[in-house]
Amino acid sequence: MSDGASFTLGRLADALGASLVGDAGRVVTGVAPLETAGPDQVSFLTDRKYLKQAEASRAAAVLVPRDVAELPAALLQVDHPQQALIRLLELFHPEPAVQPGVHPSAAVAESARIHRAASVGALAVVEEGAVIGPRSRVGALSFVGARAVLGEDVRLHPRVVIQDGVRVGNRVIIHSGAVLGADGFAYAFDGRAHRKIPQVGGLRIEDDVEIGANSAIDRATLGETVVRRGTKIDNLVQVGHNCDVGEDVILVSQVGIAGSCRIGNRAVLAGQVGVADHVTIGAGAILTAKSGVPNDVPAGEVWSGIPSRPTGETKRIWAGESQLPELIKRVRALERRVRELEERRA
Amino acid sequence: MSDGASFTLGRLADALGASLVGDAGRVVTGVAPLETAGPDQVSFLTDRKYLKQAEASRAAAVLVPRDVAELPAALLQVDHPQQALIRLLELFHPEPAVQPGVHPSAAVAESARIHRAASVGALAVVEEGAVIGPRSRVGALSFVGARAVLGEDVRLHPRVVIQDGVRVGNRVIIHSGAVLGADGFAYAFDGRAHRKIPQVGGLRIEDDVEIGANSAIDRATLGETVVRRGTKIDNLVQVGHNCDVGEDVILVSQVGIAGSCRIGNRAVLAGQVGVADHVTIGAGAILTAKSGVPNDVPAGEVWSGIPSRPTGETKRIWAGESQLPELIKRVRALERRVRELEERRA
Amino acid sequence: MSDGASFTLGRLADALGASLVGDAGRVVTGVAPLETAGPDQVSFLTDRKYLKQAEASRAAAVLVPRDVAELPAALLQVDHPQQALIRLLELFHPEPAVQPGVHPSAAVAESARIHRAASVGALAVVEEGAVIGPRSRVGALSFVGARAVLGEDVRLHPRVVIQDGVRVGNRVIIHSGAVLGADGFAYAFDGRAHRKIPQVGGLRIEDDVEIGANSAIDRATLGETVVRRGTKIDNLVQVGHNCDVGEDVILVSQVGIAGSCRIGNRAVLAGQVGVADHVTIGAGAILTAKSGVPNDVPAGEVWSGIPSRPTGETKRIWAGESQLPELIKRVRALERRVRELEERRA
Repeated sequence: MSDGASFTLGRLADALGASLVGDAGRVVTGVAPLETAGPDQVSFLTDRKYLKQAEASRAAAVLVPRDVAELPAALLQVDHPQQALIRLLELFHPEPAVQPGVHPSAAVAESARIHRAASVGALAVVEEGAVIGPRSRVGALSFVGARAVLGEDVRLHPRVVIQDGVRVGNRVIIHSGAVLGADGFAYAFDGRAHRKIPQVGGLRIEDDVEIGANSAIDRATLGETVVRRGTKIDNLVQVGHNCDVGEDVILVSQVGIAGSCRIGNRAVLAGQVGVADHVTIGAGAILTAKSGVPNDVPAGEVWSGIPSRPTGETKRIWAGESQLPELIKRVRALERRVRELEERRA
Repeated sequence: MSDGASFTLGRLADALGASLVGDAGRVVTGVAPLETAGPDQVSFLTDRKYLKQAEASRAAAVLVPRDVAELPAALLQVDHPQQALIRLLELFHPEPAVQPGVHPSAAVAESARIHRAASVGALAVVEEGAVIGPRSRVGALSFVGARAVLGEDVRLHPRVVIQDGVRVGNRVIIHSGAVLGADGFAYAFDGRAHRKIPQVGGLRIEDDVEIGANSAIDRATLGETVVRRGTKIDNLVQVGHNCDVGEDVILVSQVGIAGSCRIGNRAVLAGQVGVADHVTIGAGAILTAKSGVPNDVPAGEVWSGIPSRPTGETKRIWAGESQLPELIKRVRALERRVRELEERRA
Repeated sequence: MSDGASFTLGRLADALGASLVGDAGRVVTGVAPLETAGPDQVSFLTDRKYLKQAEASRAAAVLVPRDVAELPAALLQVDHPQQALIRLLELFHPEPAVQPGVHPSAAVAESARIHRAASVGALAVVEEGAVIGPRSRVGALSFVGARAVLGEDVRLHPRVVIQDGVRVGNRVIIHSGAVLGADGFAYAFDGRAHRKIPQVGGLRIEDDVEIGANSAIDRATLGETVVRRGTKIDNLVQVGHNCDVGEDVILVSQVGIAGSCRIGNRAVLAGQVGVADHVTIGAGAILTAKSGVPNDVPAGEVWSGIPSRPTGETKRIWAGESQLPELIKRVRALERRVRELEERRA
């Protein structure tokens, strides 16, 4: 999180593939939002609606879309400002290189295979037969269970739990407190007590997945729970046993997905959405915040509400609700008026 | 999670109390669902609605209810297929026996009493005066606070927190990340600041309870928070201070129960249900997913919605909501028509 | 949590600034609620609605408002019973003093500065350049990242994560499992994949904040996420990146606040409330349990519902909903009657 890097605008333009309008030799020492950037910092305009803030900014230079031409600051014009911003942040805040090696305080089983380019942090535990791939980092106080496998360039932040046999792909990032591979929640009532159904399946996390702090993804009863390539999961999310979460899915904080659901590629579940068991969410579907989803949602549609319905329908319901107390009075008035008409008629 | 066990069908029939229709000498090496089972595996049919899948399955044998008589595979006919499935899974995936002893990297206080048949994992912490009963396992990186007591056959998965003085019964399973006995959430505003009300009560977990990953159950202000025998709690559940959660209760993932609630025996709270403080949920009541429960719920009833109401009523409301936008138009049309009738009348 | 202290009523009256009605020499050995207090305990009546329970209580003495004059027990009359109760609980359950020093099993980086009056628990990790202030306690198995700063009298319970560079003020209490300073949830889709926007900002927790078990508060993308003085956060709460949570705010369990929100001073968000990104909650506003908040909420108002609206309006909607199925029938009947009137007219 430390700054310290500095670049000339010319060097930044090269790195970002940007057209520079301004002094190539000017030096900037950090990135900051438009409102807080100082005269030695570079800022960014990823959405034209902040043009006024950009005009008022004290930043030395602003990363802008190609068609933004006039600002007090120097301009770094690019095709895709948001992608360029990522590169800009990486330039000023490079990820420290992995320091290979096992911290002497870690407890690593003899049969665990730690790649010599991997690192295992202080007071971490790696159990029998676990495999840690090249350049992967096991954070301090993390637990990697027996026969679990981490691929290449995986980052476990401090205090992550990877249970026995869980398989994690490459370039996966897992934040502190996440628990991967706890037992699914499954019991059979035998007339006297809930008897636990053993959860003997696995959990597979594919490449380029990120999982947030204190989230929990359960192992399968049999077979595998799967989170597919490129999916991003926020903090405090629950994914039940035997779910198949597709590619490039977004699960926002506090989403809960019950067992055996299928979430299609590129679906987006906003904060606090809940999905009942055995539900299929189609590819690209969007569920807005706090939706409760008892049934399947078609691909590509936007749904909302409890129970969830197409968002247009739900919005009409929400608008109608506002009129409901008044509507009841109007119906009562109508009943009176109709009664009068009927009485006069009679 | 490793397989490796193999059994003849005759041996399985004996172990399950099943009637075998087929070759008693045939060997099977694992359990799998109907769709994925191979010819050396045994599968199961716990619900007749999957009969077609059972007919199409390549499994060597299928565990079935007694009245299922004809399938391509050999049959293991039992009275209670789901209970037999539990036994079947236990046969193929036996829990490894406890390896008694304290890992040399664990930090165990001198006055803690660890039964010689118990185990304490790598880098676990057991504080002054704590008691760990026979065959109980303290997972790696777990914390057992001062004077906390674990009974017999308790399993703390890695990285569990049992706070000071918490009492845990026998055969309790607690998953990674769970926090038992943190302070309840209680303050008194003194006109200038929220002042903390000390939380000096306890927490008692009775026998045969299971608690999911990253759940939190708070200690009482005074007295005890209690989770009674046989109750099963999923991941990311919150139980507030001074709650009394009855026997054989089911709390599904992300349920939140505020302080001083009483949850009756065998109640079921589905995912993301929220219960306000001081509420009583009657025995056997069911709250469907995402219910918001501001008031008491009678025993044996099924309630839904926000605010929660009897499910029949809530379903009628949900159905009515769909008609609401149209209803508003119909009322507007009625008003026009009645006005016309009135005008003609006048 | 251990009792053991005992006081005469005279000594308690002095300590609480109470008027004693009863025997100053009588000794009490603990605090208990009215229902369970025994004859050697002191109880409390913080709300007159429990007067009957107070009359039936076996307590030796009861802490009461000044205007409560007659009870079977001795009386400790005070101006503010709830504040006096806090003092009473502190007297019987004093916080143990910090035992300064670093546990030999902790992994502390050489460049970390641990105040000599601070304590670092068993198997905790403190990274390079971190600063732990006087009388602060780092719980067992906790992680304090590089250059993180804890002020004075901070208490990290066991197994807390303070990520790199996070700044924590004075007298802050953080419960087990909380994760402070994980990455915010931010990606830019480049047409093929969600690309991570580096989260290089910080997190600042001001004085007198308390944060519950397994909660997660993310660092900012740039700049700082801030939780201001005196704010109290319950278990399993999510606060997104770049939020500014004001002073003396209450966030009850399982609240989720998306990125870049501003929560005004003394606002109260009840259990399971969700707030969309970039929303401003005005000072002193109250959101009742399970509210879904897509838009700003004015200062001082009480809002409820999904989507949240002023509580009066939401309650009228909830009341109206109950009548909705019946209302639909009434409208149908009206339509029939109006049709008949129209037909007779024609």
